[in-house]
Amino acid sequence: MVSVILFSVPLVTHYYLSKYESSSSLGLNAMQNTLDALVDISTVNAEDLKIRIKEMLRIKASVSTELRELEERRGRLQKEAAAASAKAESVKAEYTRATAELQRLRVSADQARLAQLEAIRRDSPELAPPNQILPSRPPPIIPSLHPSSEVHCRMHSCFDHSRCSLTSGFPIYFYDPDIYSPLASAEIDGFLKTTLRQTLSYNAHLTRNPNEACLYLVLIGEAFPSNKNPSSTTEPYRLLLNETAIKQLPFWGGDGRNHVLLNLARRELSVGSGDAFLGTSTGRAMIAQSTFKLQQFRPGFDVITPPALGPPGGDVWAECAPMAPARRKYLMSFQGSKSPATDPNRDNDKQLIEALQKTAKDSPTSDVFFLQFECDPSVERRALLPIGDWALCGTDRSRRSVLRDSTFVLILAPADHTYASTALLQARLYEALRSGAIPVILGGDRTRLPYDEVLDWRRATLSLPKARVTELHFLLRALSDADLLTFRRQGRLLWERYMSSLQASVDTLIAVIRTRLNIPGRPVAPIMGTPAFNESYYPTKVEPPAVDSEPEETLGPLEAPYPSPAYRRNYSMILLQGYEMWNEWGEPFTIYPQLPWDPPVTSEARFMGSAAGFRPIGAGAGGSGKEFSEALGGDRPREQFTIVILTYEREAVLAAALARLRGLPYLNKVVVVWNGVTGPSSSTSWPESGAPVAVVRTQRNSLNNRFLPYHLIETEAVLCVDDDAHLRHDEIVFAFRVWREHRDRIVGFPGRYHAWDLNFNNGFLYNSNYSCELSMVLTGAAFVHRYYLWAYWRLLPAAVRDYVDEYMNCEDIAMNFLVSHITRKPPVKVTSRWTFRCPGCPVTLSADETHFHERHKCIQFFSQVMGYTPLLSTQYRADSVLFKTRIPHDKQKCFKFI
Amino acid sequence: MVSVILFSVPLVTHYYLSKYESSSSLGLNAMQNTLDALVDISTVNAEDLKIRIKEMLRIKASVSTELRELEERRGRLQKEAAAASAKAESVKAEYTRATAELQRLRVSADQARLAQLEAIRRDSPELAPPNQILPSRPPPIIPSLHPSSEVHCRMHSCFDHSRCSLTSGFPIYFYDPDIYSPLASAEIDGFLKTTLRQTLSYNAHLTRNPNEACLYLVLIGEAFPSNKNPSSTTEPYRLLLNETAIKQLPFWGGDGRNHVLLNLARRELSVGSGDAFLGTSTGRAMIAQSTFKLQQFRPGFDVITPPALGPPGGDVWAECAPMAPARRKYLMSFQGSKSPATDPNRDNDKQLIEALQKTAKDSPTSDVFFLQFECDPSVERRALLPIGDWALCGTDRSRRSVLRDSTFVLILAPADHTYASTALLQARLYEALRSGAIPVILGGDRTRLPYDEVLDWRRATLSLPKARVTELHFLLRALSDADLLTFRRQGRLLWERYMSSLQASVDTLIAVIRTRLNIPGRPVAPIMGTPAFNESYYPTKVEPPAVDSEPEETLGPLEAPYPSPAYRRNYSMILLQGYEMWNEWGEPFTIYPQLPWDPPVTSEARFMGSAAGFRPIGAGAGGSGKEFSEALGGDRPREQFTIVILTYEREAVLAAALARLRGLPYLNKVVVVWNGVTGPSSSTSWPESGAPVAVVRTQRNSLNNRFLPYHLIETEAVLCVDDDAHLRHDEIVFAFRVWREHRDRIVGFPGRYHAWDLNFNNGFLYNSNYSCELSMVLTGAAFVHRYYLWAYWRLLPAAVRDYVDEYMNCEDIAMNFLVSHITRKPPVKVTSRWTFRCPGCPVTLSADETHFHERHKCIQFFSQVMGYTPLLSTQYRADSVLFKTRIPHDKQKCFKFI
Repeated sequence: MVSVILFSVPLVTHYYLSKYESSSSLGLNAMQNTLDALVDISTVNAEDLKIRIKEMLRIKASVSTELRELEERRGRLQKEAAAASAKAESVKAEYTRATAELQRLRVSADQARLAQLEAIRRDSPELAPPNQILPSRPPPIIPSLHPSSEVHCRMHSCFDHSRCSLTSGFPIYFYDPDIYSPLASAEIDGFLKTTLRQTLSYNAHLTRNPNEACLYLVLIGEAFPSNKNPSSTTEPYRLLLNETAIKQLPFWGGDGRNHVLLNLARRELSVGSGDAFLGTSTGRAMIAQSTFKLQQFRPGFDVITPPALGPPGGDVWAECAPMAPARRKYLMSFQGSKSPATDPNRDNDKQLIEALQKTAKDSPTSDVFFLQFECDPSVERRALLPIGDWALCGTDRSRRSVLRDSTFVLILAPADHTYASTALLQARLYEALRSGAIPVILGGDRTRLPYDEVLDWRRATLSLPKARVTELHFLLRALSDADLLTFRRQGRLLWERYMSSLQASVDTLIAVIRTRLNIPGRPVAPIMGTPAFNESYYPTKVEPPAVDSEPEETLGPLEAPYPSPAYRRNYSMILLQGYEMWNEWGEPFTIYPQLPWDPPVTSEARFMGSAAGFRPIGAGAGGSGKEFSEALGGDRPREQFTIVILTYEREAVLAAALARLRGLPYLNKVVVVWNGVTGPSSSTSWPESGAPVAVVRTQRNSLNNRFLPYHLIETEAVLCVDDDAHLRHDEIVFAFRVWREHRDRIVGFPGRYHAWDLNFNNGFLYNSNYSCELSMVLTGAAFVHRYYLWAYWRLLPAAVRDYVDEYMNCEDIAMNFLVSHITRKPPVKVTSRWTFRCPGCPVTLSADETHFHERHKCIQFFSQVMGYTPLLSTQYRADSVLFKTRIPHDKQKCFKFI
Repeated sequence: MVSVILFSVPLVTHYYLSKYESSSSLGLNAMQNTLDALVDISTVNAEDLKIRIKEMLRIKASVSTELRELEERRGRLQKEAAAASAKAESVKAEYTRATAELQRLRVSADQARLAQLEAIRRDSPELAPPNQILPSRPPPIIPSLHPSSEVHCRMHSCFDHSRCSLTSGFPIYFYDPDIYSPLASAEIDGFLKTTLRQTLSYNAHLTRNPNEACLYLVLIGEAFPSNKNPSSTTEPYRLLLNETAIKQLPFWGGDGRNHVLLNLARRELSVGSGDAFLGTSTGRAMIAQSTFKLQQFRPGFDVITPPALGPPGGDVWAECAPMAPARRKYLMSFQGSKSPATDPNRDNDKQLIEALQKTAKDSPTSDVFFLQFECDPSVERRALLPIGDWALCGTDRSRRSVLRDSTFVLILAPADHTYASTALLQARLYEALRSGAIPVILGGDRTRLPYDEVLDWRRATLSLPKARVTELHFLLRALSDADLLTFRRQGRLLWERYMSSLQASVDTLIAVIRTRLNIPGRPVAPIMGTPAFNESYYPTKVEPPAVDSEPEETLGPLEAPYPSPAYRRNYSMILLQGYEMWNEWGEPFTIYPQLPWDPPVTSEARFMGSAAGFRPIGAGAGGSGKEFSEALGGDRPREQFTIVILTYEREAVLAAALARLRGLPYLNKVVVVWNGVTGPSSSTSWPESGAPVAVVRTQRNSLNNRFLPYHLIETEAVLCVDDDAHLRHDEIVFAFRVWREHRDRIVGFPGRYHAWDLNFNNGFLYNSNYSCELSMVLTGAAFVHRYYLWAYWRLLPAAVRDYVDEYMNCEDIAMNFLVSHITRKPPVKVTSRWTFRCPGCPVTLSADETHFHERHKCIQFFSQVMGYTPLLSTQYRADSVLFKTRIPHDKQKCFKFI
């Protein structure tokens, strides 16, 4: 017994010692007492002992029974308690859920009431794309202008605005060059005719009805010398243009109002192209060509166009040089040959050439100049105008190879001071920008560059008076690598968008004149998706099973679908952001329902007359928790988002995805892009997602389809998700809120980056490791602005999309390239979520072994196409303001978990 | 005994039951066994029992002893173990610290080696602000231009660049109007003379040496009719200008090259002011005035200036109207009176007026027009030029009250088509912008606005051909509230900066011509702080006690101080960002060492020739943990930051602050702004902070001193901290990294916001509660760009700084207003840290009860001064990319704790 006690004592003491130091002494004492009581037995006699023992036996039995009973009861009670507790838990959970639901409903009701009130109060009529107001008659005949007044023509004096109402849509009539030839002695170049006709047919402004036209376009074609001996006549081009033919054009109206005479220089550029209109009376018509005398050019009326050197249209990237390195073999190059010595202006440039040669000679070895003032082999100069213009040397190919090696290229304005522009000078500019040589125009203070009423050429060229030739080297050296790259990038941007092809150039010409008149372009065309289910049939909707993973949290009101207001800035866009539109993001050719750069209403205006649509947090008082979750707040009015799900014949996965969206606030619509050969089976029933679901079938299986700008998308915010992406509601709502502050960026979850290939040192590799620096956010779970869906098809070269199709990969990289290229900003990663695949989902294409290899190649190919890698890096991510913050008990966080 | 047992059993079972369910049965059984053993006593006889009892007594004694010994031993062992463990801990900590230190040293050594290598490789010379190259002789006399050629004057044909080298600094000589008066029959207005002389003396370009001047400025003063009967002569101003006096100006050089003839309209504006130069030969001189005929104005040569209507200089905000609400009482207003009926052009506008009146009549009640085509009371029209110009009605005060009630104001170009600008039209523009009425210029297609070669007036005015009068109402209605506010804000910006005062106007005139020439402005002047210690003496430095609170983590290399490269964009700024400089952030008057908007080098260029200064993470391969902490990465080259500590006679607090900075990577220098009457005591020793510490004494105790642009600050990044701010090193380094991506924003820790005053509904209140939406980050712990220190003094109205001084409060709110105003972006809050005060520090001013009340008032006053509340909101904060992210075991985070 004692041994048992001895055994049990240390056991108990050990336990107590190791666990509860304080209670240890208590347990030890109790045992000691038991021992002492035992010892007291020695002082009593045996009989007593026997009785006692018997008694003890009885007690023992009774105690045993009692203990057993107690044990049983304990067990029973425990079970009951557990059951009760479970029940309480479930009731509590249900209560929470119900409260949340109630809260959400209440908030939703409040919001609905507010929206209704706003709808009633709104006194301003809803703006739809305006109806066209068009003239119905050809221009009446007006007596012609006196030729001497033509030089004073400006828009206010020579343009008939009555044919171009603000809502006209700017219709343009193109005279068929086969029927109306304004050239006297020559045919218009056949290539030009065909190409221009084709090009214009793509332009949304073209009309076949001359009676409704605002503008009339006449192709003059290219004027070139009729006489091979230029010295025989000082105005070698005069005879070419048939003045009478022009004046007999059917809609000339006596004075050529609203006509544009377009002279596209193309042939014989190597010997100079001329001014087709010198000495011709052109009435009130505008002139668009490359060669202009200073006095002849009417600013804000005539247009300087680049010579038609490029292809008719399509991708041009293959002709361009990569932008890096910033500094090339030659600091500056020049190749040219000048008019014969009979030129009276020759002396003027002699000094200049000497100064340049001296600069080159004196320069340190690190600055290599490549200056060639005589061509080798020399060019025939017979046809050069006697204006001291510089002929191009060699072939397009030979010039290109020098330009690709030049950081800067010199462009010399013709010695004759009376010229503002010549076709040769414009050709030099064209070639320089194409190859990324930064143009340095000496005599640039009197030179005009193409479309300069809208393009800011200061950002792409250096323009200096000839007097500053002595300071040229200093100036070139004063520019940093970052600036060189900025000049080069901007030069390529202007070249690609406005000059590279005939299409670009003609579209630009039309957009320039339209911009002058502040007439909005035609609305961009959305893609009309083919519905997968016809009108009459839609699969039955089933209530989805309750999703347990979704934490119960009120994240926002459930509202009726509310499309983002569209086309509200048709008339202010060109004014307020015309500069950026032409020189930065670059979409002057069309108008969009919304742009990521639309300005916000100022802070107090929201409380003083411009409250409509705004949902300030706490009605303006701010706050966290409940107040925050009830209202979107921020500097933008309320809005919703559209979810675009790309799916490929995985109906079960899709159904699960739709079920998960149940109850998601701010969801306007779900657009399912059914990327399969066969449509979705109509027999299955679809889960109810709480928002309208539209299913569109695609023409063919392509990842590019993810970014099709479907007409079904009616909100600015578009959440692109893969069908197997598991995102929680709170994550989506938070990302949406962040996107509202960064409407021009990709805002999403999975971060990736481009890493320099340290082994081969010639490009970037794709990297999906955990990293502290990001440059891409995958579009498998990201918000993008609706504008970028159009931009993906309109601004990216087709080669990029073709590559995506070829490898069935990289559409997300392409989108990141595009957005970084347009904005020069990195994407925004939100929350700690790094991956979005569901753990049990079937392995997708991404797991494929070749996947990564392909993605390396994508980055390198896309960089080649764009001339540089536009991606930028970021070292932070966005969390909600009070995430992991210790706050007082009575305060609430923004979200429970993020 | 049994009762004891019975007592002890439930005791033990109770304990076990409540604690360890599984072990409960075990304990219960052990007790049961004890009981059973006890009961066995009944089967033995008494003698045996006695012996046994004795034995048991012996055993009891021995067991007791043993137990006591055990207990003692256990205690001893426990103590020993605790001591050993503590020792191990400390050794481990030391090891960690040593490793971290080693790691940091290694990284630092690597970085130093890299920097050295770069220094060796750099072939481009360091650019300092260039030396001035100045002419030393007055302009030589050149035969005058034939008057008929004057109209063809442009910069390339009439300007002498040889007097204005790129490095000249653009010196300007001002002819004293008291000595050289070009007016024949009148004195120049005395106010103009005095003011202009004073104004120019503030301009950095003014020189007293005419021999070195690039530009010569001649004040013509104001021409006004000499003849009170305008019908008697068609050119009433000709006689005023003394052509001979002009040509005899000592530096005229025969043809007036590089001269600017400045005609500032001021007096008699109510009756029209004229063109002082009509019919006068002005040689090659440029003309700057408000009235120009279309044919007379030489684009890119002459300058249209606003009439001199404002004060000489200083704050002008008090004259402006608040920007909100977007829509005012009148949709559009007009007040004017036209030239007498003898005017042959009168008919032209009759139609226009009828169309306007019809528009007003037909408009719905919500659109109120206030149109007044005859003044009431009528004005004297005798002196009006017969060009169909519109005289102003009433007084400045009466016009202002109408303009403040007008959303738009109509400005009618004179009926005479040959005018591009008149002083009256410019006066209307001036008054409209001042009161926030958006100018609608009918006939705007031929009208020129002030300084339009650099200012983008499309963003502040609506300009329409008169032909579009029928579409006017439609156009006005098509603009959204956000656009209205954008127009109004931009109008005020242009007005304040370039037109409001004579100072603004003259500085702008000079900057416009300088911009044409691409000559950089004069570098902005830093504040030369008074050192608190003289050169020879500096308090002894003591090793600070090791700070325990700092977690051991390698955060970056310890480098030698490395100032940010300065003045690298002197010649590219105007070209690449000239538009933004003039129309957005607005500092065309001077150049800064760096700006927050300098462009980054593109991604691959950093690995192809432009690597200098870049520290890519993992040498380009990216990464987290070690790789991340070793290099700054990002899209910018390496740099450091300066800490500016504002302190007020709290030496101990300051010493602690300096001690805490020990070992902080990327710290370039600590600038202590000693905001006290008495200097710091020189007797105390200062703790070693690891970076140079400069102490400057201020003139007087002012919170504005925090933002003085001291010359001691040599980095772009400036970390403003209060002396009692407790920030950890990792927090500072992370904020620095985030700032590097958002160089134009305030990046810091304590977030605040402005909440609408729901009780009084007339302004915003300051709020420091925990909130999910922020609009301010306090500058007690925030990074700002060095540029903003200058902007604080140059761009903010003086009233704001005076208010800060008066209340000794709100300098941080002022900085937030400024930055949001310039960038239209909210600040960036980093990490979960919400407050930065040390728990034990003495309570500062901020705790004062009046503090909050003052801060409400600040927000309201600053909003009044700026015309609106520029603050914008943000709903997220920046955390490091892998914060609270579950990552695989072999991966490292970006920071250990944030």
